[in-house]
Amino acid sequence: MTKEKKNIFYAQSGGVTAVINATACGVIEAARAQRGRIGKVLAGRNGILGALTEDLIDTSREKKSTIAALRHTPSGAFGSCRYKLQSPAENRAEYERLVDVFRAHDIGYFFYNGGGDSADTCLKVSQLSKKMGYPIQAIHIPKTVDNDLPMTDNSPGFGSVAKYVAISVREASLDVVSMARTSTKVFILEVMGRHAGWIAAAGAMASSADSDLPIVILFPEITFDRKRFMATVKRKIEKYGYCSVVVSEGVRSPNGKFLSDQGLRDAFGHAQLGGVAPAVAAMVKQDLGVKYHWAVADYLQRSARHIASKTDVDQAYAVGKAAVDFALKGKSAVMPAISRTSDDPYRWKIVEADLARVANREKMMPRGFISRDGFGITPRCRTYLKPLIKGEDYPPYRDGLPRYASLANHPVPKKLGGSFTVR
Amino acid sequence: MTKEKKNIFYAQSGGVTAVINATACGVIEAARAQRGRIGKVLAGRNGILGALTEDLIDTSREKKSTIAALRHTPSGAFGSCRYKLQSPAENRAEYERLVDVFRAHDIGYFFYNGGGDSADTCLKVSQLSKKMGYPIQAIHIPKTVDNDLPMTDNSPGFGSVAKYVAISVREASLDVVSMARTSTKVFILEVMGRHAGWIAAAGAMASSADSDLPIVILFPEITFDRKRFMATVKRKIEKYGYCSVVVSEGVRSPNGKFLSDQGLRDAFGHAQLGGVAPAVAAMVKQDLGVKYHWAVADYLQRSARHIASKTDVDQAYAVGKAAVDFALKGKSAVMPAISRTSDDPYRWKIVEADLARVANREKMMPRGFISRDGFGITPRCRTYLKPLIKGEDYPPYRDGLPRYASLANHPVPKKLGGSFTVR
Repeated sequence: MTKEKKNIFYAQSGGVTAVINATACGVIEAARAQRGRIGKVLAGRNGILGALTEDLIDTSREKKSTIAALRHTPSGAFGSCRYKLQSPAENRAEYERLVDVFRAHDIGYFFYNGGGDSADTCLKVSQLSKKMGYPIQAIHIPKTVDNDLPMTDNSPGFGSVAKYVAISVREASLDVVSMARTSTKVFILEVMGRHAGWIAAAGAMASSADSDLPIVILFPEITFDRKRFMATVKRKIEKYGYCSVVVSEGVRSPNGKFLSDQGLRDAFGHAQLGGVAPAVAAMVKQDLGVKYHWAVADYLQRSARHIASKTDVDQAYAVGKAAVDFALKGKSAVMPAISRTSDDPYRWKIVEADLARVANREKMMPRGFISRDGFGITPRCRTYLKPLIKGEDYPPYRDGLPRYASLANHPVPKKLGGSFTVR
Repeated sequence: MTKEKKNIFYAQSGGVTAVINATACGVIEAARAQRGRIGKVLAGRNGILGALTEDLIDTSREKKSTIAALRHTPSGAFGSCRYKLQSPAENRAEYERLVDVFRAHDIGYFFYNGGGDSADTCLKVSQLSKKMGYPIQAIHIPKTVDNDLPMTDNSPGFGSVAKYVAISVREASLDVVSMARTSTKVFILEVMGRHAGWIAAAGAMASSADSDLPIVILFPEITFDRKRFMATVKRKIEKYGYCSVVVSEGVRSPNGKFLSDQGLRDAFGHAQLGGVAPAVAAMVKQDLGVKYHWAVADYLQRSARHIASKTDVDQAYAVGKAAVDFALKGKSAVMPAISRTSDDPYRWKIVEADLARVANREKMMPRGFISRDGFGITPRCRTYLKPLIKGEDYPPYRDGLPRYASLANHPVPKKLGGSFTVR
């Protein structure tokens, strides 16, 4: 177990995105280019669970063309999971198990590709070196559609959702304006973002100098004020004939409850969880009495690789590649972050962020990015978002459908006896 | 009022699509190419309402490049409406008004671009020649995302929705499979189609020989059987780890009510109209106890010009162009229809359909297109759908967003005194 070349453990964590596989592509291609210094990239099947259960995937058995195709393939090719490691104090067995698996498979690098929770896990793993005497370099690779990671200008995964939402709102708005005379006057789109309103903000990008559209945004950062909201929608309808509303799933009422939490009951009295879009639609009907339509983008927004942002794809790849560079430079407890050096022309570079300053912190929309009335974005926000949605990066098609990579995901033979029961 | 060259009245009717403007482009470009024989194309602002209220748009004042851009612009550039003319016996005043407007603006051709209801209106207008002594050629141009027009192999607008749904289901399914181990196991997408299941059927195209995905379709043609549905979903989860469900908004319970009609009440007792997707999700939770997610595509599906089907765009343009050809050949009470002459390689041509055989008939999914268990499509259906979603036809982009045409829509000066009050 003392070979010179150590293997990389790579895992995808939390909700997947349209470009997290582009990051995997960056990691694997960069590692393959450094064959003399790095062993294999072993991926965790279903994220960290793969490490805990010794269910590893040997990516070295995939063809070069298959790995290259990961760049244009959405979702998590190795499986992801929602599972947060407790602290070593709470559950030492999990960390001992990780060390056993790392040691058995000669893993010297732990790459964890996720959001805030994953950054915390990665930080804990980085501390194993000292605490448990096992040398491992832990590198967190940023990924989250929520764009709420600190220390990085933006998070890979966000740009593509933002582009999808901006395009969808533009297209749906054109639809509504053409029907508004006799039919729908308010269109409501529900988007992700339980705490931070970055994705909702992207909806405002649908309107631009060459395409003026009436759009009202409901941010989770701003407490819902029904009266002011309705007055704003009404003004838009009076001016434009219609109004599009983009509502974040995380919007809360003044009583602190999610707006989607309406205490809905069906005819049999069963509780129903409605979305926030139908809730807002019902209020629009009650207060304004106009015809409405509503949509809930849900997973469509974060898996829409067919219209991914080129900036986002490039950055997702770059952070994966940078993780390998950082590993070879002996770094640990770090995250490759995106640093913006110029807005226009847009320029960015990868820098090193201290993981201790990333973990467990959420980056909300700055108040200076939200317009004074709370229903739109400011020019500063527009300047920030503009390059992130720029560029198209179309996947190849066959028979009208995108050809996404399909990996064989060969398991690495298990070396440890017994099984480990995950909480 | 006896000039040789007559003007065309063109109106968009009913729900708009990603490609109805491609049809408008076809009409206007073909008419401009026949300047020696045809006058102007005057568009109705907000469909037939534009004719009734003498609110006409002079398309001849738009630049060539703007008209060309209509080909890649979704929604109805001149406005559409939901308004069905009554019969001349019920409301003769409406027809007299139409004749007055046609005469005042030297209109010899009535082009109505819509679905089944519009075909009926168009047929009634074609009878004005005899009934009211005003010579007019009425030509219906097919358009409907529902694909339920008879006498044509398919309807322009459908192929692009079908492509959007197929791609979205493929992308969302890849998302779910990567999360299924610890999170969502059932994903439900609600699509349009109140009577016919064509759009829902397209969801099944997400799975193909090179991408095997577990998809269950709920068609409006098949009465919902909760027990059999749950058993089917459960089997898919056992085999694949997850299941995607595509549900048509028009699915009905055995009691004949829409499945979406659950008698929902909020905490204050107000009636709420939920979608069918959350209704199915609630049942999945109750019966199978697994984690679910749901999405409602609503207008996004029919306005998604960013991923329109090239076949659909080509056909939408072709029916517009053919309407002009038909007009010059002296035809009336006809519809340019799409005739498929070969599945593979796909070949089609435009033929003439008798409008009397189009109006007021809905083309449902043939039972032979729905799999025996009622939850999927047959190879015959697959052969039918495959060419309709084929090919991409990307719009141009600026700053990450599609550049859609923005028309000036110059009004034609009114010639009639007084106003006409629409019902």
